[in-house]
Amino acid sequence: MSAAFEGVRVLDFTINLAGPSASAILADLGADVIKIERPITGDDARAFGPFVGGESITSLWLSRGKRSVEIDLADPEGRALIQKLLPTATVVIESFRPGVMKKHGLDYESVKAVKPDIIYCSVSANGQTGPYAPKPGYDLQAQGMSGLLDMTGEPDGPPQRSGTVLGDYVGGLNAWGAIATALYHHAKTGQGQHLDISLYEGLVMLNSMVDYVDLDLKPTRTGNHHPNAAPYGIFNGHGGQSAIICAPSDRLWNKLCDAMQKPQLKTDARFNNAPARMDNLPGVIDAIEGFLKHYDDIDVPIKILEDAGIPCCKSVSSHQVLEDAHLVARGSVVQLEGTAEMKENGVQGIRMRGPWVKYSQTPAVMRASGGLGQHNREILNEAGLSDDQADALEAKWHAKK
Amino acid sequence: MSAAFEGVRVLDFTINLAGPSASAILADLGADVIKIERPITGDDARAFGPFVGGESITSLWLSRGKRSVEIDLADPEGRALIQKLLPTATVVIESFRPGVMKKHGLDYESVKAVKPDIIYCSVSANGQTGPYAPKPGYDLQAQGMSGLLDMTGEPDGPPQRSGTVLGDYVGGLNAWGAIATALYHHAKTGQGQHLDISLYEGLVMLNSMVDYVDLDLKPTRTGNHHPNAAPYGIFNGHGGQSAIICAPSDRLWNKLCDAMQKPQLKTDARFNNAPARMDNLPGVIDAIEGFLKHYDDIDVPIKILEDAGIPCCKSVSSHQVLEDAHLVARGSVVQLEGTAEMKENGVQGIRMRGPWVKYSQTPAVMRASGGLGQHNREILNEAGLSDDQADALEAKWHAKK
Repeated sequence: MSAAFEGVRVLDFTINLAGPSASAILADLGADVIKIERPITGDDARAFGPFVGGESITSLWLSRGKRSVEIDLADPEGRALIQKLLPTATVVIESFRPGVMKKHGLDYESVKAVKPDIIYCSVSANGQTGPYAPKPGYDLQAQGMSGLLDMTGEPDGPPQRSGTVLGDYVGGLNAWGAIATALYHHAKTGQGQHLDISLYEGLVMLNSMVDYVDLDLKPTRTGNHHPNAAPYGIFNGHGGQSAIICAPSDRLWNKLCDAMQKPQLKTDARFNNAPARMDNLPGVIDAIEGFLKHYDDIDVPIKILEDAGIPCCKSVSSHQVLEDAHLVARGSVVQLEGTAEMKENGVQGIRMRGPWVKYSQTPAVMRASGGLGQHNREILNEAGLSDDQADALEAKWHAKK
Repeated sequence: MSAAFEGVRVLDFTINLAGPSASAILADLGADVIKIERPITGDDARAFGPFVGGESITSLWLSRGKRSVEIDLADPEGRALIQKLLPTATVVIESFRPGVMKKHGLDYESVKAVKPDIIYCSVSANGQTGPYAPKPGYDLQAQGMSGLLDMTGEPDGPPQRSGTVLGDYVGGLNAWGAIATALYHHAKTGQGQHLDISLYEGLVMLNSMVDYVDLDLKPTRTGNHHPNAAPYGIFNGHGGQSAIICAPSDRLWNKLCDAMQKPQLKTDARFNNAPARMDNLPGVIDAIEGFLKHYDDIDVPIKILEDAGIPCCKSVSSHQVLEDAHLVARGSVVQLEGTAEMKENGVQGIRMRGPWVKYSQTPAVMRASGGLGQHNREILNEAGLSDDQADALEAKWHAKK
């Protein structure tokens, strides 16, 4: 067994989160990802806190399995180096604003002239074409423009942002899917192509409600409860604790009433069928929250419901997620080896999110992250430079401010 | 030019949202997706409102480009039919609870015995192995267990659910990425494999904060403003309107102060550097919201900021998203042809989310959705049955309750 993308070389010009999350997946799948970084400072993500042993945790996850090389794209010697690496690459991935790669002579057409079958993936806020292409765009804008924000939050309050960088990560998943699709096409036909991924459009895809465009319905946020199913939502327990309970069918509702020791609700006309429960949602919520608040520790009623076969759980704190026995059992938590800098600082490794897709034949490989410039000499050697030439280039770029 | 997955046949046993969203992407990419449905009622998603011309909008989007055939898996004649179709398939995808496909004699090992190089993708709440494998799981549970809920909402309120079915859609993206990866491996080696996708693990991947497991930090939700950058968030305007403004750098902050005609804030020690703005976040918010609330219509101040080069936008209502000129210009909105039933009801087609990834060489194809059983005879013919035999089977299965 070997990883699926062994033998695939990726020249990775991406920075921040979306692009690097895509190339990290390619690395998990065995690709040789060469992360090309600005000398001295590197990818902006290297400055994102918190830090462990001198390295950014975010950057460690994004750089896993990659080889890092510092190359100054503004220097003709840097560009010449890229020209030597390009013919060895199957994939180029970049995440600059449209136009920046062209300035470096590295847009799709230029790269294609050197490597005709290149798979060239551009990840950007709004895409390479259309009126918003030149606009800067942050993750939160993609959330807002996609309508997802308008769907999230309480009906009488403002829209609520997602606690994670949804647009970036979904953009990364789309870039992976598109590159894998293009690799398949390449394997079949020998053809490369240009892939154009936008964070904005990736989030539009997640919002089913946009398809109501020609209906009279104008859906908006409904808070912590489902717009068409009950009970299905987040319920308040004692002292600010919460429980997620999903029992929208009559069968589950009946089980829930028994588990709460409120069997009389099963035959109550306000609740004994799905439309009635929607009409009397406040009553449904009161019944459930009354039950939950009876217990100081929300784990107790959740256990009661779980034992009764009701789909339910706690809202888990982020720092506890990777302690979960199920994730550990499935190899979804890994110990990543530390970089040279971390080890110097006495940190041998770090526990992190492992591979989340399981392949029976081509299992993912989680390899250590490359510290900034860790593979400078190795990669410059591969590009045909002697050790002395490689060291001289590094010294030149490190001397600059 | 042809779509990337032309010639790939997919036997699709999925229901609800996650699995069908994955096989719909395969159909966009040209695969021949045969959607195998329970006779009479079909995929549960066919009952999800709202409806247009008698068809579920959600189901139309999920079934685009697929051929629908009703097959009763509980009937030996139905199973025999599947056995005839299996050798023609490259991919099988299913989304039942672990164990259900085995009950039908259609688990990975059984299918592999008939078609040794099959790519078999299972999509489930928690995955095929580990202690939670047998548990039922809804999208909202995946949100809660991944820590994403705990990161979303106001710090003094409960966690807040996402307004979309994040776990399902992200599961669909992961299934697509994994299948495309496995297709590449298949093209290179001729090997198939079993892919195991879980909604829960897909959302854990989206939560960077879970990697803080071994730190003393215990991150939780910070409401509508970024935990480490300001201004970056959702700001309240007049009468419940909102604006998304992202200007966390000093450069953008200075521009913002000028655009708001509050140049004195640029040199104010409470705000003139990034850490100061975090320390004085309420003051930052007050300054911006004061500016916004000065205007009855939030579009006016947003236009002022946009013209000044500040990354900002409105929280767009879902029903207005597909009206966006940028999406239209990029072909990200399509008119899908209606099903036979819709046309009978006078609806020729429907405007919907189009392809969100742009392939220069293998553009996506958005084809009409198959109505329930629309391809019964065609597919039974392909499996070697005569018209009479096909019609007899359909009649038998339609006669059942």
